[in-house]
Amino acid sequence: MLRLNGALVATHDTMVEGVHWLPGQDPADVAWKLVASNLSDLAAKTCRPVGLLLSFMLGDEAWNTRFAAGLGEALAAFDAPLLGGDTVSAPSPDAPKVIGLTALGQPRRDPPPSRADAAPGQALWITGQCGAALAGFEALQAGSDDQTLTAPYRRPVPRVAEGQALAPVAGAMMDLSDGLLLDAARMAEASGTTISIETCLVPVHPALTRRKREAMSWGDDYELLFTLPEGAACPVEAVRIGSVQPRGAHALLLDGSPPLAGQSLGYRHGI
Amino acid sequence: MLRLNGALVATHDTMVEGVHWLPGQDPADVAWKLVASNLSDLAAKTCRPVGLLLSFMLGDEAWNTRFAAGLGEALAAFDAPLLGGDTVSAPSPDAPKVIGLTALGQPRRDPPPSRADAAPGQALWITGQCGAALAGFEALQAGSDDQTLTAPYRRPVPRVAEGQALAPVAGAMMDLSDGLLLDAARMAEASGTTISIETCLVPVHPALTRRKREAMSWGDDYELLFTLPEGAACPVEAVRIGSVQPRGAHALLLDGSPPLAGQSLGYRHGI
Repeated sequence: MLRLNGALVATHDTMVEGVHWLPGQDPADVAWKLVASNLSDLAAKTCRPVGLLLSFMLGDEAWNTRFAAGLGEALAAFDAPLLGGDTVSAPSPDAPKVIGLTALGQPRRDPPPSRADAAPGQALWITGQCGAALAGFEALQAGSDDQTLTAPYRRPVPRVAEGQALAPVAGAMMDLSDGLLLDAARMAEASGTTISIETCLVPVHPALTRRKREAMSWGDDYELLFTLPEGAACPVEAVRIGSVQPRGAHALLLDGSPPLAGQSLGYRHGI
Repeated sequence: MLRLNGALVATHDTMVEGVHWLPGQDPADVAWKLVASNLSDLAAKTCRPVGLLLSFMLGDEAWNTRFAAGLGEALAAFDAPLLGGDTVSAPSPDAPKVIGLTALGQPRRDPPPSRADAAPGQALWITGQCGAALAGFEALQAGSDDQTLTAPYRRPVPRVAEGQALAPVAGAMMDLSDGLLLDAARMAEASGTTISIETCLVPVHPALTRRKREAMSWGDDYELLFTLPEGAACPVEAVRIGSVQPRGAHALLLDGSPPLAGQSLGYRHGI
């Protein structure tokens, strides 16, 4: 049981076989990603993870064993205690698996930053590189066994330490799950500002230097997108990629111009 | 966001179409039961519910609408705020639905009672009647439209107020989800005692007076099973049905004798 004093952030992610992962994927990677995606949500809220609850659908022995192995690795890597959860039978052996995770965290700041907290006069920053997950995904699709190249897709590392370190200084903050451009546009909409990105400043995975737009529109990177007062030093490893401006005609500007109409900004969930 | 001071209990239940409910059931009842079963877990821990997170698999419009209606009714009935969660697409239109709920609660006692806290010299008590859910289930199966008779199965009411009222006095406490006999045996095993039940004292739904053993072995009743010091007054409406004794050869005694070997005590989950 938890004993807490102060604010608590609770988040839940559900993953469905055939929607969020492919039937052939290693269940250990699926487990890792479920934990990572939840902890990434907590990271954006400056949280220290305090507990997880797992909803697990039983499968055959290979599925159960590999899933547990990946879960154990993730729990150890991120120092997040598993408090409980529920285990359910599959309705039939071939039914798509559904797994879920609730993550509880204590924010280092109360209230924690949200995507609505961007304000004109702030600079826009990002951790890591855009497109690392895409590069890993494409390598996997091509049958690569280069573990380093595929790791960002299979085993993303949420920015838990960075999120906590940013608590005293971040304006707005969110984790990138659906691509930089779409998530930046959401930040602009939520905060009633225009966000202007200089694409030459955006760090992109080396495999995607000639496909930068794609790298900025692909999800699964689990990096942090945040704002700091213009000119402020950043306490974590990150790159300044743009600025927040008073709301103009467009939510998002790329190199000073609005994105072309009809061009996808990123991954939209099927709802 | 929650702001808390002290202990927090977190519980998660997942329900699967074809395992926990039948495809033809009203989605509003499914939603209600998902909330009720989680709140029943909190009730047994003397908790005031402070928040829920829902994992919802989208279906057709009828499913979504009816589910939301039942969810709204349950949230209002039990005064439990929905904090968030996740919504996922189904992998295919005919895939069995999977839904989950995390419930967070603040216990009135720290540590809260557990099934391991039964001790010799205590009396065993139960709220409500055994078999009300079974009577409702059978009525539904028979095509009854008697809402009062079917309600305990369709719309069980967790003992949230009773659980909190019992905080100062209860020894062991648990909610009945798999039938009185199985759950009482679990309490005995967890606490290293023998639990002795006088079956003539067990309140049974009127429709099942001639099938008492079945009523005591059927799940879904969501009543509280708890112990009090022998002779103590009970602060909630409940009935004394037995006593806790030093551990003998058997975990459970019914009218002084062990249950017959090979006879089922209750519903065992498929794991």
